[in-house]
Amino acid sequence: MKLIKNNLSEKLIINKYFKKLNFKKKGTFNFDNDGAYLEFNNNYKLTVTTDNISEGIDFFSYDDPRSIAQKITTVNLSDIFAMGASPHSYLLNLHLPAYINDNWLNSFSNQLKKIQHKYGFYLLGGDLSKSNKLIISSTFFGSINKKLEVFQNKLNLNDDIFITGNIGESKIGLEILKKKISSNIKINQYFVKKYLYPIPCNLGPLIACDVNSMKDISDGLIGDLSEMLNNKYGALINVNKIPLSVNIKKILSIKNNLRIENLLNAGDDYELIIISSQKNRNKIISIANKNNVKISRIGKIISEKGIHFDSYLDMKNIKKFDHFS
Amino acid sequence: MKLIKNNLSEKLIINKYFKKLNFKKKGTFNFDNDGAYLEFNNNYKLTVTTDNISEGIDFFSYDDPRSIAQKITTVNLSDIFAMGASPHSYLLNLHLPAYINDNWLNSFSNQLKKIQHKYGFYLLGGDLSKSNKLIISSTFFGSINKKLEVFQNKLNLNDDIFITGNIGESKIGLEILKKKISSNIKINQYFVKKYLYPIPCNLGPLIACDVNSMKDISDGLIGDLSEMLNNKYGALINVNKIPLSVNIKKILSIKNNLRIENLLNAGDDYELIIISSQKNRNKIISIANKNNVKISRIGKIISEKGIHFDSYLDMKNIKKFDHFS
Repeated sequence: MKLIKNNLSEKLIINKYFKKLNFKKKGTFNFDNDGAYLEFNNNYKLTVTTDNISEGIDFFSYDDPRSIAQKITTVNLSDIFAMGASPHSYLLNLHLPAYINDNWLNSFSNQLKKIQHKYGFYLLGGDLSKSNKLIISSTFFGSINKKLEVFQNKLNLNDDIFITGNIGESKIGLEILKKKISSNIKINQYFVKKYLYPIPCNLGPLIACDVNSMKDISDGLIGDLSEMLNNKYGALINVNKIPLSVNIKKILSIKNNLRIENLLNAGDDYELIIISSQKNRNKIISIANKNNVKISRIGKIISEKGIHFDSYLDMKNIKKFDHFS
Repeated sequence: MKLIKNNLSEKLIINKYFKKLNFKKKGTFNFDNDGAYLEFNNNYKLTVTTDNISEGIDFFSYDDPRSIAQKITTVNLSDIFAMGASPHSYLLNLHLPAYINDNWLNSFSNQLKKIQHKYGFYLLGGDLSKSNKLIISSTFFGSINKKLEVFQNKLNLNDDIFITGNIGESKIGLEILKKKISSNIKINQYFVKKYLYPIPCNLGPLIACDVNSMKDISDGLIGDLSEMLNNKYGALINVNKIPLSVNIKKILSIKNNLRIENLLNAGDDYELIIISSQKNRNKIISIANKNNVKISRIGKIISEKGIHFDSYLDMKNIKKFDHFS
């Protein structure tokens, strides 16, 4: 394998590319140990989430390593934020194929470092293996006030349903890359960037005391909202409140066979679905505004099970998004 | 892919095979959430370790799923015990190829449950992906008294060097499976079991207060001891104190080209190397004896760097064991 030809041994890779990511935190033992200590303040508790991404499914071998670094951190950070927690540290399990070389590792690890600095977390440890395809698993730790607990399916009748940002952006980016959709260069670039460099919504920890439930949109608005309803309640959605960017509206207007229905199951947006009591409505909107996070109240919780729309949508032929299929 | 043909969706796999492994612990949300809480007593701190195992490297596709379950837990438990900690919980990241069916998952998850009951820990969460080869990453959490810290390379001149159990057993098992070595059926089975069903040494937490350093033997006695010496000290090893089982001695006596030298870099034994002050010698031996753990004092720490033997060993052609190559 090339890793051997290039003299990239496990030890060398760790020393050259990954040691810089432990930010010299004591519990990491500077990666000289087989294990680490997770050290944090006693007033907090730890949240944990773990995700896999794989070549040919979540990214392609020719993708920029910075994009792959962005994806593996965003899928995890997004879950941490949705739990109302702040990122603390993470583990990286890398399965590396022969084409991974110095340039790749340099670019990948520098992007991780940038993201770590942005959100304030460090690399606690990991493991390297060889593989015929690039596969990455990563486990993220977040910290949250001991007294808080944010659920994904705790909700009451008449609760507000909010979502942050816009939906469907990442999906359009992928369709553009697949050459199924096209617009002008500027708009194409806008969407491709949304797909290749998704950014997690970090509003969660700021409103953790004020919500009943939160979940990130990784499997599409409908899919993730259904999970939250947990077959106990229903949701009534105001279709014209569903947030769409100016660019999405442009795309919808030029593509006859692309409708808003197609965007309701679009994955990988990493925005938040927030379900909260009406009495906290103004507070949540004001915190979002103060932090420059776009927020839209798209509907409310009702007793009739299922997801209902206030105007006709044809969902018959819309496939549910599933990372596993 | 078969997973789809067999209707094994992600949700179904989780519900049918993995929910039983969360032991209904509150922080797991019964796997209905994208994340989990790590809950533990305030007087303890958390140790973390993570390891990958891959088809074609650490096991074969035709291996019994119970053996694969045993391996992924033992590589991790062994690190947790070496840190002086007790197992608390774990995460499973599974990359599943098409040949994984109901029988496989049933057998794999039941073996995990058995091991969890034996050592008292639960499944906190995980992620499933599809893959062309079976790849498993797992992250283990252990708990240890807040005041304790067990290192891998803290040592002093004249410290004792102990190892638990016997060395080389797993390697001989692999050589038998590869048909490079053979003895009678009973002895063959003894070694193959050592390779397919390795058992971690759980002495670590019982002597955590009494040692300077501990490390599990995953890359061979020489490799792991070298790591511990960290190029600061040396070790003098009494060759005839190196613990060999009766069966290993039999194999050595019939195989002319197999020498004790070959066993010093044999990986995957998951026994412990313990470095401790002479004043704790009797206490450590007595705790090991009380717990039916074989322990051998094989040498001591000296100032002359490197690993030295009290009788001639020819290490020239002995390759260092490396999981990554």
